[in-house]
Amino acid sequence: MKNVKGFVFDAYGTLFDVYAVTALCEQLFPGKGPALAQLWRVKQLQYAMMRSLMGRYRDFWQLTEDGLVYACQSLGLELTGDRRARLLEAYLTLAAFPDVRPGLEALRKRGVRLAILSNGEPKMLEAAAHSAGIAGLLDRVISVEEVKIFKPSPRVYGLAPERLGLGSAELGFVSSNSWDVAGAASSGLRALWIQRSVAEPPEELGFGAERVVHAITDLPPLLGS
Amino acid sequence: MKNVKGFVFDAYGTLFDVYAVTALCEQLFPGKGPALAQLWRVKQLQYAMMRSLMGRYRDFWQLTEDGLVYACQSLGLELTGDRRARLLEAYLTLAAFPDVRPGLEALRKRGVRLAILSNGEPKMLEAAAHSAGIAGLLDRVISVEEVKIFKPSPRVYGLAPERLGLGSAELGFVSSNSWDVAGAASSGLRALWIQRSVAEPPEELGFGAERVVHAITDLPPLLGS
Repeated sequence: MKNVKGFVFDAYGTLFDVYAVTALCEQLFPGKGPALAQLWRVKQLQYAMMRSLMGRYRDFWQLTEDGLVYACQSLGLELTGDRRARLLEAYLTLAAFPDVRPGLEALRKRGVRLAILSNGEPKMLEAAAHSAGIAGLLDRVISVEEVKIFKPSPRVYGLAPERLGLGSAELGFVSSNSWDVAGAASSGLRALWIQRSVAEPPEELGFGAERVVHAITDLPPLLGS
Repeated sequence: MKNVKGFVFDAYGTLFDVYAVTALCEQLFPGKGPALAQLWRVKQLQYAMMRSLMGRYRDFWQLTEDGLVYACQSLGLELTGDRRARLLEAYLTLAAFPDVRPGLEALRKRGVRLAILSNGEPKMLEAAAHSAGIAGLLDRVISVEEVKIFKPSPRVYGLAPERLGLGSAELGFVSSNSWDVAGAASSGLRALWIQRSVAEPPEELGFGAERVVHAITDLPPLLGS
C-alpha cells in the first residue's frame, strides 16, 4: 500500500454507523426492530442491483423508501406517514464509527486524498457527512448519481480515479461489504475489507481484498514511513 | 390475455419444485436444512446479479456451487466433496409441481407455444425438464447463457420474442418471483405472477403483474374460448 495516494470509502456501515436506524425501528415497532432493519437493508441493496440491471435507475433516497415500504408490508407493520418520515430522516443524522474521525485525520496529515464513493444520493451523503462531523476531512463526496447505475458496476468504481485525478493503483478502496470489495478489485482499485462486526466469510465472487483491516485507524500504518 | 400465443416460464420455483434440495440439505445437515437452503438460494441469486453488474459472467451451475460454498462457510457447515456433489446433483433431478404437466398439456391443446426462460445453465435446465417429465411439452428451453447476463436484464427477456418468433404483446411470461415479473413487465412482456406459497407483497420495483395466478392450470381459461 506504499504508493497509495488516496483512500475512497464506502459510506453506510463503513464510515457511518447505521445502528441509530435499527434503534429507531425498535422504538417505533417494539420487538420487530432488528427484523425490520435487516429486511429493509436487504431490499435497499436488492432494489439497487435489480434496477441497475433493468436499466430503471431511481435514486437511493427513493429506493430506501421503496425498501421500507416492502419491508413493512412483508412484516405486517403499519407504516404511517409520520413513521415513514422519521425512519427515512434517520439516514440524514447518522454518527460515524468512533475510529473514523481519528483515522481520517491521521491520513490527511500524511497528505492522502480522501473521498466517499457510495450508492447514496448526494444530499443524503452530504447530510450524513455533516452530521457525523467528517465533512471537512473529505476532498470529495462521490455519488453513483453521476452515472445513474449502482455498485458493483465498474462505471461506479471508475468515478474514483477520475474525480480524484489519481491512477487506480494509487487508490485504496475501503468497504465493510465483501461484495463491494470484490466489485472494486474487479475494477482495478486496490481493495481493502474493513471487518466491523462478527467475521463473515468473504463472498465467492472471484475477487478479494488486498488487505483486511478492522478500523480506519489501521490504515495510516499501511502507508509506510 | 386473449391474443397471447405463447407462454414463457421461469424454471426454479415456478415449474420445478426445489423442495427436494431443501430436504437433502436437512438430510446431510440435520437441523440446518432450511437455513442452508435459504441462504444458498439468496447467494445464488445475489451472485447472479452482482456478476452481471460487474461484467463478470459465470454460468449458473458454477454460481450455484459458489453460493453453496459461501452458505456452508457462513453457517459453519463442513462441505465435503461428496456432500457438494450430492447437493449440486439435486438440481438435475427436480420434480415439477403437480399442476405443471396438466397445465402445459392443456395449453398445448390450445396451440400455444411454450418455453422456459431461465437463469439456469442449459444442461441443468435440460436435465431438470427431463427429470420432471415435461421436456416433450416445451418448444424451447432458453437459457441466459445465450446473452451471458442474468435476469432482470432486458437482454434476457428479449430472448423470448426472438426465439419464439412472436411479438412481446403475444407472449405471457410467468414467474413465482415478483422481481422477475417486474423485469419482464419492464421489458414489454405480458407478465403473470404465480403465487405458489404464502402471499408475499409484490416487490416495489415500479412494474407489476398483469395477472396473478396460483397454478399453471389457471392459465388456459385466461385465453378465452
